[in-house]
Amino acid sequence: MDGIRHLIGVSDITTSWWNSLFSLCREIIAHPQDYSDANRGKVMASLFFEPSTRTKFSFQAAMLRLGGSVFGFENANDTSASKGESLADTIRMTSAYSDVVVMRSPSEGAARAASLYSEVPLVNAGDGGHQHPTQTLTDLATLAVTRGEIRDLTVGLCGDLRYGRTVHSLVEALAKFPNIRFVLTAPPELAMPDYVTRFMRARNLTFTEVPTLDDALPQLDVLYMTRVQRERVIQSATQSTMEYSDDFILTRDKLARAKRDLTILHPLPRVNEIAPEVDLDPRAKYFDQARYGMYIRMALLLKLCAQPRTAPEPVAVGGAKCANPACITRREPYLPDLRNDDGGCGYCDVN
Amino acid sequence: MDGIRHLIGVSDITTSWWNSLFSLCREIIAHPQDYSDANRGKVMASLFFEPSTRTKFSFQAAMLRLGGSVFGFENANDTSASKGESLADTIRMTSAYSDVVVMRSPSEGAARAASLYSEVPLVNAGDGGHQHPTQTLTDLATLAVTRGEIRDLTVGLCGDLRYGRTVHSLVEALAKFPNIRFVLTAPPELAMPDYVTRFMRARNLTFTEVPTLDDALPQLDVLYMTRVQRERVIQSATQSTMEYSDDFILTRDKLARAKRDLTILHPLPRVNEIAPEVDLDPRAKYFDQARYGMYIRMALLLKLCAQPRTAPEPVAVGGAKCANPACITRREPYLPDLRNDDGGCGYCDVN
Amino acid sequence: MDGIRHLIGVSDITTSWWNSLFSLCREIIAHPQDYSDANRGKVMASLFFEPSTRTKFSFQAAMLRLGGSVFGFENANDTSASKGESLADTIRMTSAYSDVVVMRSPSEGAARAASLYSEVPLVNAGDGGHQHPTQTLTDLATLAVTRGEIRDLTVGLCGDLRYGRTVHSLVEALAKFPNIRFVLTAPPELAMPDYVTRFMRARNLTFTEVPTLDDALPQLDVLYMTRVQRERVIQSATQSTMEYSDDFILTRDKLARAKRDLTILHPLPRVNEIAPEVDLDPRAKYFDQARYGMYIRMALLLKLCAQPRTAPEPVAVGGAKCANPACITRREPYLPDLRNDDGGCGYCDVN
Repeated sequence: MDGIRHLIGVSDITTSWWNSLFSLCREIIAHPQDYSDANRGKVMASLFFEPSTRTKFSFQAAMLRLGGSVFGFENANDTSASKGESLADTIRMTSAYSDVVVMRSPSEGAARAASLYSEVPLVNAGDGGHQHPTQTLTDLATLAVTRGEIRDLTVGLCGDLRYGRTVHSLVEALAKFPNIRFVLTAPPELAMPDYVTRFMRARNLTFTEVPTLDDALPQLDVLYMTRVQRERVIQSATQSTMEYSDDFILTRDKLARAKRDLTILHPLPRVNEIAPEVDLDPRAKYFDQARYGMYIRMALLLKLCAQPRTAPEPVAVGGAKCANPACITRREPYLPDLRNDDGGCGYCDVN
Repeated sequence: MDGIRHLIGVSDITTSWWNSLFSLCREIIAHPQDYSDANRGKVMASLFFEPSTRTKFSFQAAMLRLGGSVFGFENANDTSASKGESLADTIRMTSAYSDVVVMRSPSEGAARAASLYSEVPLVNAGDGGHQHPTQTLTDLATLAVTRGEIRDLTVGLCGDLRYGRTVHSLVEALAKFPNIRFVLTAPPELAMPDYVTRFMRARNLTFTEVPTLDDALPQLDVLYMTRVQRERVIQSATQSTMEYSDDFILTRDKLARAKRDLTILHPLPRVNEIAPEVDLDPRAKYFDQARYGMYIRMALLLKLCAQPRTAPEPVAVGGAKCANPACITRREPYLPDLRNDDGGCGYCDVN
Repeated sequence: MDGIRHLIGVSDITTSWWNSLFSLCREIIAHPQDYSDANRGKVMASLFFEPSTRTKFSFQAAMLRLGGSVFGFENANDTSASKGESLADTIRMTSAYSDVVVMRSPSEGAARAASLYSEVPLVNAGDGGHQHPTQTLTDLATLAVTRGEIRDLTVGLCGDLRYGRTVHSLVEALAKFPNIRFVLTAPPELAMPDYVTRFMRARNLTFTEVPTLDDALPQLDVLYMTRVQRERVIQSATQSTMEYSDDFILTRDKLARAKRDLTILHPLPRVNEIAPEVDLDPRAKYFDQARYGMYIRMALLLKLCAQPRTAPEPVAVGGAKCANPACITRREPYLPDLRNDDGGCGYCDVN
């Protein structure tokens, strides 16, 4: 990760890093015993301001299997945040005790904000609807390990493309690989947002939108299914969307029309968008995906924990403004003003 | 456990395994240092869908003292179950990350259900009112270590025999040992249920029912006290049962009439059924029982973690039906139909 | 800690122990690698009946960096206390599984009570408004490491001196060091309580009270800032106290009048009593203080875990009486009567 200090979003990762991580991941899969003491004496802080089982478990198991140890919290009510402590002070204190900080927050931009105050590398384990880079690491690692090189693929994205954070990140990451074409399938209210389609056009990525999964399947090398995330769509979805139309559900019958070497992925947890009968199909890789997620996190933690402890660069006090009500700057008024090249908020990316 | 893969109920354990576990337990007690790295590199997943301090601590301490490590959750609100994830998917994911899964759930039959989807050994740390086999391991280990062989004993069971899951399991387990006789003492509303008395008759186990603890004490070699479990008796107990009648409370005075080498056990936590003054009596073994519980779990985890990771046998999707509203099949509709020899539900054992 | 078994309050620590702990602390800071396996095979139980991030993290990180492991709970709802289990039984069970117990409780005197039933050393991580000795360890360790010897200092205490438990302990501990003079600054409703000023007079400690921080600053070698603890002042503070008057807020401007080698401490978390701009001043040591807190706890845990497991002395059952409604004796009726030399409650110290 030579150069990366904090993993905030997928765009932090260059193509050479992707390959370096995949390479190390394959080695760990092949010889796990050689890595079982690699992070011995190192401590990972696990700060989950909102619940997550999968991400939390995969990070904890990864650190433990490297011979390291873990402390942290699982929900914000158990923390001094409930006593009014700022995120900055929580991070300063936590990074004083640990060698790497893994953080999940419901506030967008929280990971960027936290990284400004940390003495050790910080990993974004999900910041609201904004980014979840280690899910994308997991998705790509699964492709790299099961299919070899990531290139010349037709990738189907199906389900909640509007709020599906993992889908947006996947597109952003796959843009760095050669000859990737996308096929999008979603209920109209959950179609891919403009900022992603603009991104794809700007990068000359080919994509088509088709109305149902049946229409998409025959052409796909990879199918990435997503669930409708209730906790993010409360205001906007109609009842018919919440009960997922059959057009977007994957069943064994539909797979009859799919390629023999199709790779089926899902970030999990799933609700009903993949029928249980599909689990037995050898093309279903979403459970293996969980295991690869642990291995790729081992590769990441190994690289990050090798970095030295360094006092962060001092930053200005206050000045951040953002129109997004979910942005971390709304809750932490001392944050400095940070802007992206396009003038968007440097924390949550909203313009 | 040569043959056992998952520990779901006490009937899973044969007499030769009991003896093998006791033997290993005694060795660990004698030479704990020899085992302090035995599970190094191994990871235990601790999935507690309902709170428990004792069972959770004893498993965690056991794994840590074998040099292993632990991750997990303590209550269901912190989990993706609250996002609609199935138990099967939670188990698939968790077993991908761990070498053994220890699970407590309020749903009866949950452990059996979970075991169908796990790649690693699974231990039932309590599934509602159904089974709690490691409590029975603890109870018998305490007898084996403090009294030697388990045979030729008059065992008193006192308190809540109706809802006392640990009592039912203890009877089931002791049935495998020679010449065990039972003396039952309980308020009438909390008497031993029919299915247990039928079991005892079918196994030719002698038992008598006496109205008070005073009547039982002089004849006992072992006294097993239980508390009235408020959280399981809300609908049925009268106010007079909830305030435990003196007839069922153990005091120092009553012990004057007991055998000198009586062994007093209690699964704990206790409320008021054993007066604190009894704690100083050398016959009180219920605190030692906690410590033996850690050692017998060390023996169990050592054996289970030595087993290889294996993909579970595929099972059918759906078909389970059960009349018990607390049965796991009511919550997880994809579970396959499993039946016991007597036609009862293969998950919760209810007919 | 040769002689100390349990760390309940700062008065348990003699001057020679202070120096012994500081000495070990400096060694650990200088050569952390030499200690990374010192507590290998040892297990710390972390019983937090009320939430705390900082204290919990500092203890966990300390134990992990000594090569030990940790289990425990973070809030009382996840425990068998919610099933009616006594504190004594919880401690008996927990100490059976661990080598040291670290406990935080909202009840005053809880640590003393717990220590009566523990087979292993017990550390008070805070018992309501009563004591928080490891915070004082942290405060003094910071002074010892950054300033050398603790002597000939003018120490300013500013903020909530009435409910600020850490302030009371700091005074009590500093009384053991030569030539320490105090300057007190607080809103009138939050002035230092009588029992502390009486203590200072009884020990011939010089102290003056000044109305604002500006008045105090020029004379100080050490400034100890505290926050208004909302969760302890609900009934008594007026709205004007809750919004902290400028007189008690530390800003960069005010520091212009302070000594060049002033040491600024704060137990954290802070809310608004130290302006963020102060963080960049080299005299601000409150973030370093967090890190020293981890090191001094490593020293403490190292010493305590070297002690043998010992059955506690039997104690009487019942008899404790105390007028303090927050005293642990109100919740745990079996506790024996314990009195201080001055007749005060032996648990919470209230007369």
